Parts: sequence; structure tokens; C-alpha cells
Amino acid sequence: MKVLVLHGPNLNLLGQRQPELYGTKTLDQINEEIELLGSQLGLDVDFFQSNQEGMLIDRIHQARGVYQWLVFNPAAFTHYSYALRDALQAADIPTIEVHLSNIQAREEFRSRSVLAPVCVGQVSGFGITSYLLALYAIFERGRLGEA
Amino acid sequence: MKVLVLHGPNLNLLGQRQPELYGTKTLDQINEEIELLGSQLGLDVDFFQSNQEGMLIDRIHQARGVYQWLVFNPAAFTHYSYALRDALQAADIPTIEVHLSNIQAREEFRSRSVLAPVCVGQVSGFGITSYLLALYAIFERGRLGEA
Amino acid sequence: MKVLVLHGPNLNLLGQRQPELYGTKTLDQINEEIELLGSQLGLDVDFFQSNQEGMLIDRIHQARGVYQWLVFNPAAFTHYSYALRDALQAADIPTIEVHLSNIQAREEFRSRSVLAPVCVGQVSGFGITSYLLALYAIFERGRLGEA
Amino acid sequence: MKVLVLHGPNLNLLGQRQPELYGTKTLDQINEEIELLGSQLGLDVDFFQSNQEGMLIDRIHQARGVYQWLVFNPAAFTHYSYALRDALQAADIPTIEVHLSNIQAREEFRSRSVLAPVCVGQVSGFGITSYLLALYAIFERGRLGEA
Amino acid sequence: MKVLVLHGPNLNLLGQRQPELYGTKTLDQINEEIELLGSQLGLDVDFFQSNQEGMLIDRIHQARGVYQWLVFNPAAFTHYSYALRDALQAADIPTIEVHLSNIQAREEFRSRSVLAPVCVGQVSGFGITSYLLALYAIFERGRLGEA
Amino acid sequence: MKVLVLHGPNLNLLGQRQPELYGTKTLDQINEEIELLGSQLGLDVDFFQSNQEGMLIDRIHQARGVYQWLVFNPAAFTHYSYALRDALQAADIPTIEVHLSNIQAREEFRSRSVLAPVCVGQVSGFGITSYLLALYAIFERGRLGEA
Amino acid sequence: MKVLVLHGPNLNLLGQRQPELYGTKTLDQINEEIELLGSQLGLDVDFFQSNQEGMLIDRIHQARGVYQWLVFNPAAFTHYSYALRDALQAADIPTIEVHLSNIQAREEFRSRSVLAPVCVGQVSGFGITSYLLALYAIFERGRLGEA
Amino acid sequence: MKVLVLHGPNLNLLGQRQPELYGTKTLDQINEEIELLGSQLGLDVDFFQSNQEGMLIDRIHQARGVYQWLVFNPAAFTHYSYALRDALQAADIPTIEVHLSNIQAREEFRSRSVLAPVCVGQVSGFGITSYLLALYAIFERGRLGEA
Amino acid sequence: MKVLVLHGPNLNLLGQRQPELYGTKTLDQINEEIELLGSQLGLDVDFFQSNQEGMLIDRIHQARGVYQWLVFNPAAFTHYSYALRDALQAADIPTIEVHLSNIQAREEFRSRSVLAPVCVGQVSGFGITSYLLALYAIFERGRLGEA
Amino acid sequence: MKVLVLHGPNLNLLGQRQPELYGTKTLDQINEEIELLGSQLGLDVDFFQSNQEGMLIDRIHQARGVYQWLVFNPAAFTHYSYALRDALQAADIPTIEVHLSNIQAREEFRSRSVLAPVCVGQVSGFGITSYLLALYAIFERGRLGEA
Amino acid sequence: MKVLVLHGPNLNLLGQRQPELYGTKTLDQINEEIELLGSQLGLDVDFFQSNQEGMLIDRIHQARGVYQWLVFNPAAFTHYSYALRDALQAADIPTIEVHLSNIQAREEFRSRSVLAPVCVGQVSGFGITSYLLALYAIFERGRLGEA
Amino acid sequence: MKVLVLHGPNLNLLGQRQPELYGTKTLDQINEEIELLGSQLGLDVDFFQSNQEGMLIDRIHQARGVYQWLVFNPAAFTHYSYALRDALQAADIPTIEVHLSNIQAREEFRSRSVLAPVCVGQVSGFGITSYLLALYAIFERGRLGEA
Repeated sequence: MKVLVLHGPNLNLLGQRQPELYGTKTLDQINEEIELLGSQLGLDVDFFQSNQEGMLIDRIHQARGVYQWLVFNPAAFTHYSYALRDALQAADIPTIEVHLSNIQAREEFRSRSVLAPVCVGQVSGFGITSYLLALYAIFERGRLGEA
Repeated sequence: MKVLVLHGPNLNLLGQRQPELYGTKTLDQINEEIELLGSQLGLDVDFFQSNQEGMLIDRIHQARGVYQWLVFNPAAFTHYSYALRDALQAADIPTIEVHLSNIQAREEFRSRSVLAPVCVGQVSGFGITSYLLALYAIFERGRLGEA
Repeated sequence: MKVLVLHGPNLNLLGQRQPELYGTKTLDQINEEIELLGSQLGLDVDFFQSNQEGMLIDRIHQARGVYQWLVFNPAAFTHYSYALRDALQAADIPTIEVHLSNIQAREEFRSRSVLAPVCVGQVSGFGITSYLLALYAIFERGRLGEA
Repeated sequence: MKVLVLHGPNLNLLGQRQPELYGTKTLDQINEEIELLGSQLGLDVDFFQSNQEGMLIDRIHQARGVYQWLVFNPAAFTHYSYALRDALQAADIPTIEVHLSNIQAREEFRSRSVLAPVCVGQVSGFGITSYLLALYAIFERGRLGEA
Repeated sequence: MKVLVLHGPNLNLLGQRQPELYGTKTLDQINEEIELLGSQLGLDVDFFQSNQEGMLIDRIHQARGVYQWLVFNPAAFTHYSYALRDALQAADIPTIEVHLSNIQAREEFRSRSVLAPVCVGQVSGFGITSYLLALYAIFERGRLGEA
Repeated sequence: MKVLVLHGPNLNLLGQRQPELYGTKTLDQINEEIELLGSQLGLDVDFFQSNQEGMLIDRIHQARGVYQWLVFNPAAFTHYSYALRDALQAADIPTIEVHLSNIQAREEFRSRSVLAPVCVGQVSGFGITSYLLALYAIFERGRLGEA
Repeated sequence: MKVLVLHGPNLNLLGQRQPELYGTKTLDQINEEIELLGSQLGLDVDFFQSNQEGMLIDRIHQARGVYQWLVFNPAAFTHYSYALRDALQAADIPTIEVHLSNIQAREEFRSRSVLAPVCVGQVSGFGITSYLLALYAIFERGRLGEA
Repeated sequence: MKVLVLHGPNLNLLGQRQPELYGTKTLDQINEEIELLGSQLGLDVDFFQSNQEGMLIDRIHQARGVYQWLVFNPAAFTHYSYALRDALQAADIPTIEVHLSNIQAREEFRSRSVLAPVCVGQVSGFGITSYLLALYAIFERGRLGEA
Repeated sequence: MKVLVLHGPNLNLLGQRQPELYGTKTLDQINEEIELLGSQLGLDVDFFQSNQEGMLIDRIHQARGVYQWLVFNPAAFTHYSYALRDALQAADIPTIEVHLSNIQAREEFRSRSVLAPVCVGQVSGFGITSYLLALYAIFERGRLGEA
Repeated sequence: MKVLVLHGPNLNLLGQRQPELYGTKTLDQINEEIELLGSQLGLDVDFFQSNQEGMLIDRIHQARGVYQWLVFNPAAFTHYSYALRDALQAADIPTIEVHLSNIQAREEFRSRSVLAPVCVGQVSGFGITSYLLALYAIFERGRLGEA
Repeated sequence: MKVLVLHGPNLNLLGQRQPELYGTKTLDQINEEIELLGSQLGLDVDFFQSNQEGMLIDRIHQARGVYQWLVFNPAAFTHYSYALRDALQAADIPTIEVHLSNIQAREEFRSRSVLAPVCVGQVSGFGITSYLLALYAIFERGRLGEA
Repeated sequence: MKVLVLHGPNLNLLGQRQPELYGTKTLDQINEEIELLGSQLGLDVDFFQSNQEGMLIDRIHQARGVYQWLVFNPAAFTHYSYALRDALQAADIPTIEVHLSNIQAREEFRSRSVLAPVCVGQVSGFGITSYLLALYAIFERGRLGEA
């Protein structure tokens, strides 16, 4: 099963800035961890990061017919990118929304996700473990025979 | 490590009603699955369900000094029980908020959690797998040495 | 046909307090009147009152498979108990929402019912007659062959 | 006792359109059913339907001194006709607000009644039975000696 | 100078209902008082009352080229009739908005006038004197040479 | 194919008032232009204008079984007439909402249409061309075989 | 009968600034006109202007037992001075609220008067004539024997 | 004079958790201090704590005819329990609302009390002294002969 | 310990107006009562009243280094004077906010205090006893050794 | 006359996804239809699609001096791209806003267009016919000699 | 060129309180710095501080015909003084709004300025440098020949 | 000291469009002016303009370790780009927000800056002088030894 992990804007800086909030690992190190767990769970994982809304839309379009699952940390786009919402809906690939921090425990504007209504589920607040839980979710959904 | 899984109101009916939304497994079967994964991950799991806000508050109080983690599906209390919020904050046990359905993808009133600001993180939308992901979260947090 | 009449919080004080608003009859006297009309209309009526949200939820759960109709005066729970709403939805017994006073003619906060969306209909403003109208509604629905 | 039943806009189409929502009976057939129950309960019932707000206001004015009760299904006027509200208040005839569907269970804009504050009570959600319940309400209020 | 005094819905009942709020004079008596003051001030006054929004619109249209001023008590239409607003704007006759009661001192919904933005000014709260003040306004505007 | 063009309140004044906003053509001249294009496109067009909400409702009711399309400029009723909305929904004739001015580019209250949810589509901002586009829409929908 | 005319902040600049909005007469000239009409109507008028909320409160307090009426143009204080509201309520002298411009036809924040609920009535939009109408109102109320 | 002091949810943990916010004294120690002051002021004080809304309602009902005053710290129920509000209103015992912290100086949701409208007064922000002030209030009201 | 009691706008009229709401004692009599209790509790109390926001600000500034506590009834300034809020914050003297009436039980606009976030606590609803409770609060805080 | 048709984000997927909502034609096929009608109406049409807000802005800038009209389907950018709004305003080319679906008949967030205030008009709800109507609008505006 | 620098409420305490927020310089020292830069830039600067809204209004009125620019730090009045807004508009002297702290980065209520719509521009967040930038703005506007 | 000046969307058109609002200078001319003042103040200034949110994010990331200050005119992104906000926060370079026009004096949607909370300060309303003031701010902050 092929999984595409999408990282939204500013996540390329992970590990370099605000470690008290986002941890000390770089995006490459995080991707390695994800890949490692993926291989343990039988998931073939690819990665893509962009600070550009349009690039993420393009990548979601191209994922059609190639990936069975999207794991998407939309970062700040979570709160206003209706274009990404339409892209996910059009691509129609089951998507798991992932956040490093607990978005309902921060500033008011972060508590609302305009993408949630077109995603299977949401994992937020566990740091990089949030990504790993998304993989476990895909694994367990298969194991339990759920949709 | 000891974990207390708390089920909020109406979850005692799981498997009996609205299976298209909540699946066909009973609460006992779900608890068994959780327990099984817990034992695999080295987690000692107990369970408690109540339809009474006050009973859940009492149980959270009693959990202090006994459990290292709470996994809590507050069901409808998610949206208005400031008393449970205060209970979690007072008990000061790290808590993972769990929802079977994706609460930001349903009725407007379900999109807001008054408990989230006092929880570590939130998992929603994966059916009973949501509970399992909470266990994985505890397991991974330990493994990665995160707080 | 079996009907369960549920009385919410503070209704045990009926007849003792604020008679200008709620009349002079006690809850027992009201239940007698309801029972009398029920027997005239061929309806077998039981009663339950609680000031505890959780007790009402439990009672609604137990009503499944026993009662064909619920007549529910949720009193103040009308305005915030999403847990009762979920209980009614899960129990899936046709429910008539009843209010002694006209809830849209009082304080602003009383004008909204969070339970209405899962009820068949609502009767409000007729004092204890509101309960009687609920029985007539069940009777007429049967007579007219409506769902 | 004389009762005037007022039907608001679009109710002349009853039975012809959207039967899944409003039933298959025409307004004439409904009026017959209301009249029949009225005669059984000792109520002398007249009817008036109009798609014009102003005609309904005129009819309410003329009802003064002639009718002891109004049974009013204001249909869409429920949500914005402050002119009808003033008419009811000025006429000062006790009025029962009636709705075929459960207005708090539909679109948001239908959940608010600007007329409710000047009505005795409200019956909604029982299809044409809503009208019959209004008659029962008048009958029971008389029987119980309530205002 | 010709002035048309327009009375909105329910004002035909003046003097008959709620005298504590609106006084004991009938609409005819009020019109007489207005006419009397008009003749003293050199104003030729006509009158029109309707409970129908559309009739009032028609009358406003016909007033073009005939009347130099409108004095309009829109009653409940004040709060929602954008059609009357457009009619006044289209007719382009200077209009004085008149209210018997002080609309900002009553229910919240009465505090907003959708017509005010297309009127010269507003007089409210003086009972039937409100109409008389409108005539004085026309008279004084002429005397002072204001627009 | 028969089309009924409905003009709402104040549109009878077209060409006479506020030409900078609504153009210099009278309603009759506009109807002629619409009729001319209709005949070119094979559409049989009738017209109706009223300043009365209730008259428009009646006309919509009568259109059932006679007209295949409604072209409706509801003017100010756009923003509050839930009665017209129910009429359109009950009549169930495909309807095109038409506005001379661009309603989302004017006062805030004009930006919301309570009728839009029951119409096929909306054309606004093109002056009398808005009506013509509605005819082209009917014509093209036929030509393209769309519903 | 003694009347105190109160002018709120910035009204001392009348006639000097923004004549297109407020006219070309100075406050002294306006006061003269008011005084003249007052003497014609048998009203003994005094004047007070201040840019200080507290000075106006003091003056209102001192007016008790001296003046039978207040005519008050609160200018910008209209929209936020709850202290003036309390002063008027405490002084309990019938007060007429006066505005030069039509406050519901300007910026949104000007449409709400926090003073209106404690005033007899409001006159707005007639330029300095607004003050004169207030005198006429006092005169007519006396003549008609209204409270 | 008999006084019942009611402690709402989570207050049983006082002294054990968040001492920086709520102090280091346990509920028993606080009750002792209250009792001591009560005896000095001639007040006979009883205590009740519950985490259950329904238990508090029951206790308020039972207080009728036994206690002359309630001193109530509703904790988190302050913000949503309309059922407790109705209980206080029905019991009709003068009630003083007490809060340890200054509720208008914390999170937004804590600034509103749904109970305040049915209480005599409110004391908030003085830690356990808030309870003592409530006793002083009862004492002083007696001494001053106020209601 | 020196305490400054500040009375806001309109409180100079106490005892003269609206005695049913604010009691029959004059401000001087109230100050005497406060002074008396102060002397009993070992508190040296001074007084200041002004209807001017700026005077109150000046007085608060001057209180720095002289008084250990402020007892402040801001009256209507409670609801909008951010300048007083800044003054209190800048002066940094512990302040107790006092209200004669229960501000959350009156008009909506009175329920919010913009000063509360910079005060130690709030006492409202006990008439002049509210001031006395503030003194008791200072006394008890000292006695209990709280900050 | 040269016309630039701009397609916003996700429209490159037309015909491939959600055909029940957006039809079965691909963007190329749609462009062909548009081009065909354009040539019939004497309009020279070019096309541009992008998922990137910035690319669309660049293209709008470049259109200055080249195209006389823009036909713009901004898709999801409709609801939040103030940058595109500024681009249209800066480019100052008359623009017609086009939507496939009726945006006021879908989710709440789709009912508001932040671009509408800088466009000539809006066509929504006619599927690909919406584009064709935009061409007819340009054609008719020329024919009728309107701006 | 003559410039009047106006300091609003509580700014007389600058340097004495909350130095972490507002710096350690007194208002006199700040004025000296402003004066020094003014003389370097050829600007003749005067100063005025008041805690009284009305005094500031008076000073603004007197500035007409004397000063070419106002530099105004309205402090807390920024958020509610519509009277100052009217004063600035009436005085019609170009005004630069200045804030020591970044008002959009603090409490919600500080993010809105009711004065901004009548000012040339706003400088906020630079401590006392904010005042200096206002002088530079005046200087540069002259140098660049801008209005 | 190195400063990066960032220009957001549509600013590349400066001088070409809407000169009445934004002046007649091109972006290059403006940059020259900024550079000139920079060299006078000892600031080494670079420039970057983009219509793409993602490009601006990238540039902000790259500025880390190179520039000591950012001067940023985010144009329309001011009002919704939470992604740019996160970028500024992550880059942690002190940033001055700059606007040509006074954003609180224009359309409602322009009055809120989602970037302000992560910027040092804001300068708005001075045309291109706004940029110059940002340089002066950097210069003065250095000279005064402020952070």
C-alpha cells in the first residue's frame, strides 16, 4: 500500500526553530522515522513538502491512481485553504489530517480546520508521533477490515 | 505503565445502534481489543464507562497517583462539560481525547471541544481505531523519549 | 401501545413552587391525569422523573424494545444536554418534546432546543395540557395511519 | 366556542406538492378533518387561507369579538412577519401557533418564530395532527379550567 | 405644499387596542388632528392606511409628482421591508419616518429601521404628536430655507 | 418551451427612476427585448410584475403545469421573503434568479439571497442583459442536453 | 415651563466646520432660534454645552427640581456613555433626544443610542430644526394633555 | 439563622491541586474556617459538596423550609447549568454566588454566570475569603435591616 | 492600613433617587457606615466621588504610595472605561470592584466589566453592604496572611 | 474583442471527478465549446488555468492592455483571496465572475464572494453554460451599447 | 511648521510604571527627545497631556488655525471615544495616530481604533520611537511633496 | 546592519494603477528612495517582491542569519495568510509591518492584520513614506539602545 505524506508551509524549518513547540528533529529525520515505521507496517511511504498552496494542490492531483492514502499536515493552510479542501475532495483519496501541536489548545484561529470535513480523521498534539499514528491508523484500518 | 480508558455517555450502546456510524462491535469487544493491544505494547489498561458527568469526574479524581495516562472519549460531554475540563486540569494526568467520528466533519456544534485545551492531543474519526491510536501514542511517546 | 413519560430536572417540585407559571398541581396529580387520558386513548403509560442527566440517559436506553413512544419534558436540559440528544438518537424511539411554558416566549436562552432535531415534534406552552396533547398526538397518528 | 383556523402562504398547495414532507391530503380534506374533530369537541370552526400577509392581518382584525381562539399556521411568515405579530397582539385573541413540520429540526432560519412571544403555545412536527392537537388544547384548557 | 401621510399595518386599530401604549384616539381622530395642524401650517394633507406592503408601495409610486413630502409610519414594516425602502428611494420624495413609541426603547428587534437610510429624518416616541412634529418639520424646513 | 418572467417590487418604475443604476428603459421596453430574444431562441415568454409578495406567490402557483421555466427578479424580496422561497420549492419549476445590479457589490444586506437555495442559478449585475442571459441559459441548457 | 437644552461634545464648533453636514449657523445663533420659538410657545429655555461627559452629568443632576424638560443632543456620547444614561435615569426629568443628522442613515456605530431607552422620544435628521421640533413636542404634549 | 454552603464540582480537591490558584487549604479546613466565622456571627452553617449536578439540585430542593440562606460556589456549573438555575429559582431561598478566583479575569467562557440572574449577589476573586464574605453579607444584611 | 474608596458617576445622588434599587441612604451616610466599620477593622478610610472619568484617573494616580487598597464602585464606567482600567493597572494598587446591584442580573450591557481583569475581586448585589464586604475582604486577607 | 478566460484551482480536473456535480466534460472540451461560441459572437478567446493564486495574479496583470474582458471562475479562491481582488481592481479590466455550481445554494462558506465587489456581474449555477453566458453577456453589452 | 503632540490618559505616568512595557523614560524626557528631533527637522512642537477626554477635545478645537499637524497618542481612548473622533474630524487638521505598543498584538479590545478612520496614518509598536516616526512622517511628506 | 524589504502581491504595479490611492512612483523608484535613505542611515537594504505567498515564505526562511530586520508590506496577504505569520514567527527576525494606505480607514476586512501579533510594530497610511519610516524606526531603535 502506497502512502503519500504531505508537509505544508514552514515545516521545512522543523528542528531549527521553536524546538520547545515542535521538537528538535529536522524534517529529514522525521521523514526517516516515518519511513522506518512504514516499512515495519508494510507501507510504502513517499514525501512532499511545499510552502506553496498550488504546489500541494498539484501534488494531490498527481497522487490519484498512485497512492491509496494521504497523510497531510497542512500547517497554517488548515485554517483558510478552501482550495486544498476542494483538491482533496476532487482527488478522493482517503486522507488523514495531522498536526504536531494540539490545534484546539492554541490561538482561537487555529481551532477550526476547513479541511476536516473532507478527511477521514484527525490526529493532533503528539509532535512527530502524530505522523506515526497516522501510519498506525492505516495499518489498523486494514487489519480490522474497516473501510 | 497504567492507563485508564474512560468512555462517556451513550457509549455503552456501541455495536447496538447506528452501526453505519459507529461500527458493529460492542463496548466489551472494543475494550478487549484495546486491552489486547495494550498488553502487546506493555500497557496495563483499565476501563470505565458512565452516562453521568459526576461519575466521570469522581473517576478522574481517583485516577490520580494510580494511572500515568488517561484515554478519554467524552462523547457529547466534549462540547459543554467545563466541569470535566476542570477535573482533568485538577487531576493533572496526561490525557488523550478520543472520538470515534471526525467531530469537525459533522454538525457545527460538534466541532468545538471544551476539553481539548487541557489534553495532550486528540484523535478523531477512525472508529474504534481511535482508541488504539491513543495507545500507540503513549507507546511511541515513551519510545521517542518525548514528554 | 406503551408510552414512557420522562420528566426532567426540577419538575418534582411542580405544584409547590411558582404556581403562577407552572400551575398548582403536583407531579403525582399530573401523572394521574396523564394516566387517565392514556387509558381512555388505549395507551399504557409509565413515568420517570430525575434531576440527573445520566439517570435520564440510562432510562432512555432501557426504554428500547419496551416502549413505542417517549414523551419527554427535558426542562432545563433542553438547552444544553447534547448527551440526552445522543441518547434519544441512539435509542431511536419516536419522541415528543413537551414544555409547560412557551419556550420561545421567555428568556433568549430558552428559545433553542438542542433536542428538537431528534424528536418527532414539540408541544409547548399549554401547562400540563402539553403532556395530554402528546398523548393525543400518539393517538391521532395511529388513527390517521401516519408514520 | 368559536375558533378561527388561519393557514399562511403556500398551504393552499397542501397534498399536491412535497407529500413526503407535508402528506397527501389537500387543504380542503384537512379542513374537513379539523371541522369533524371540532364538532366532536364542541368547537365551531371557521377557516381562512391567504398567501398575502396583509389579508391575514385584516382577517385577524375582523376576528375580534367573533372568535374566542385562533389556530394559526403562519408558514414562512413565522420567521419574519413582525406585522402579523403586532396584529395578533393588537387583536388580543388567544392564539395557538401550529406547524406541520418540526421547525427546530430543519434549516436554521426556520428555528426562530417571531410570533411565538405573542402566542399561548406552539405545536409543531405532527403533520396535520398539529392542527388537531390545537383543538384538543382548546378543549382541554376548557375542561381543566385553565386560562 | 402637498403632504401624504402613510400609516402602515395595524394602525387602523389605533384607539381600540393597547391604549396604554398607543393612546385612545382612533385613526380618524388622529387624521383630523393632523389635518387641522396642516391647515394651520399651510400644508395640504392626504392620508392612506394599509396592512399590505404592496399597497403601500403602489401608493408611494403614485405619490411621485403629486406630493412634495411623505410622512410615513411604517409600523412593523420598519424592521424588514426592504421593498418599501426601495420604493421610497425610487420615488425620491423627501420622507419623514414617524413612530408612536420610542422604537429604541422597546424590544431589540424594533431598534433597527431598514427605512431610515432613505429618509430625511425620524421622529419617534411622542404618540400622535410624532405625526404633528413631522408637519412642523416640513413647515420649519420651509421657513428656514433648508433643503 | 414556455417561460414566465416574474418582476418583483418596484420594477414597474424601471426607466423612470435612478437611471444611472438601472438604465433608461421602461419595463415594457425591457419586456419587448426579452420577448424578441425569446422568439429568436424558440422560447414563448410571458410576463408578470407585482409589488405584492402574495400576488407573486399566487402567480408561481398558477405557473405549475403551464411553464417549463421561471425567470425571476425578486428585487428586494430576495433578502427576506421565505414565503416566496417556499412557493418556488412547492411549485418545483426550474427557476433562474436574475438581478439588474451585482447584489454582492452593494449594501451588506443585499449580498444574501434567501431564494438562491431553491433556484437553478443566479445572474446578477448585467442590467437588463441579466434577463437575456437567463433566456440564453435556458436555450443552452436545452442545446447541451443538461438537466 | 422651564426647559434645559443640553449640547454635547463638539457642538460648540457648529457653523464653523462641515457646514454641508451641519449647516452654517453657529451654536449661539441656533440657541437664539430655539429661544425665540420657546418664547412663542411659552417655554423658558436655558442652554448648556460641554465637551466633558462629567460636566453634562453634573448639569443634569442640578436640573432636578428646576426644569420640567430636558432637550438633549448628546452627539458622540449617544453611542457609549452609559454614565449619561444613568444620570438621565436618576434625574428622572422627561428628556427628548435630538440629533442634527439622521443617525440611522450614517456609519453603523451611529445607529445605536444607549440613551434612547431612558428618553421620552427621539428626533433626528432635521438639522437645527430637530431642536425646534423638540420644543413643539413639549408644547403639543401640553396642549393635548398627554403625559 | 441556618445557612447551607454548597460546593460544586472538583472543589473536593481543594488544597491538593493547583495551590497557586486555589490555595493550600483542604475543603475540610475551609469548612472549619467558615463554620468558625459563622458561629462568631450567629450563623448555623451546614456543608454539602458534589460533583454531580443532579445531587446539587436535590440538595437545593431539600433546603427549602430548612435554611434561610444558600452560599453556593457552583464552580464550572456556573457557566452552563440552567438546571441549577431553575433549581435555585424554584427553591426561592436567597442565594449568594461565590467564586474563589475572579471569574471575569480568566478565560472568556468563565466570565458569564448563568446563575447570577437568580442570586442576590456575587463575591468572586478572594480565595476562601469569598466564602467568609458571603457570611458577612448575611450578617450585615440582618444588622442593616435590608431584605 | 490606608484604604481609598472611590465612587463613580451618579453615586452622589444615592439616597435621593430610585431608592427601591439603591436604598435610601445618602452617600455621606454610606461613607459614615464604611468609615465606622473601617475603624472597627483597623482600616483608615478616605473617600472620593466624581462624575468625571479623568478626575477618577487623576485620583488613582495620586493614590500610589499613599494607599494600600482601593475599593472602587465604577458605576457605569464599569462597562466601557478602558482608561480607568489602564489607570488601575498603572497604579498597581490592589483594587476591589464593588457594585450595589448584581450586575449580571440586570441589562445585558451591565454584565461585562472591563475593569475586572485588573482587580483582585468583585462584590456585587448587596446594596451598600457591598462596600462593607470589601473592607471585610481586606481585613480577612490580612488576617489569613493571603497576598 | 479579446477575452481572457481564467480558470482557478482544481478546475484542471473537470470531467474526471465528481461528474454529478460538475459534469463529464474535460477542461479542454469546455474550452473548445467556449471558443466556438466566442467565434460565433465575434469574440477572440484565450484561456489560462492555474492552481496557484500568484500565477493567476501575474496573468491578470499581463492582461492589461491586451484583453477587453476577463471571464473568471475563481473556484475556491472566491471565498478568501483578497490578493486576487486587489489584482482585478488594479488591472481594471471589466470582469465577469463565473461559477459552475450555484454558490449560494451550497455550504455556508461558499455563499460569500470576496471578488464580487470588483466584478461587473456574476453568473453561477449553470454548469459550463455559466461560461457561455459570460460570453453572451459581453456580446449583449456591446449590442445594447451598455458600458 | 507647527506640530501639536497630544498625549492621552495615563501617559503622565510614563517611566514610572510598567517599564518592561513602556520603557523607563518619563513623559518630560520623551517630550524633550521629540522636541530635539523636531528642531532638527524644522518642526516647532508643542505638547499637551490630559486624562480627560473633554480637555483633549477642547485642545483639538483650539489647535485649529494654529497647528498644521497633530500627533496623537490617544491611549485607551483609542478604543471607544467617538467624541474624540468627531473632534478630529471637525478640526480637520491632519493627524497621525501613535501608539507605544503594537495594539494589534495585545488584548482583543485593543486591536480596534475608532479614531483611525479620521487619521492620516498610524504608527504603533515602537515605544517612544513611535512619536519620532510621526515627526519623520511629517518631514518626509513635506520633502516628497505629498499631501 | 542588513535589512530586507519585502513587497507582497500586486505591489509590482505601483505607479501604474490607482495613483490617487497609491501615488505615481513605480516600485523601482520607491526602492531607490528606500535605498537612498538606507544608505544615509547606515542600513544595507535588499528588496524582494512576489505575488506568490509561497515565494515570500521561502524568502523569509532564507533571510535567517543574513538580515537583522525585515520591512514587510504584505498587501492583501495581511488579512488571511496565517502561513506568512508562521513563517515570520519561525524566522524570528524582527519585522516591521508596512502599509501604504491606512488599513483601519478602509473596508472592514482590511482593518484586521493576522500578521501584527508577530511583528514589532506597524506603520500605515503614509504612502511610500511608510517604508521610509520603517527605516527610521530601525535607525532610531539602534540610536536609543532599545531592543
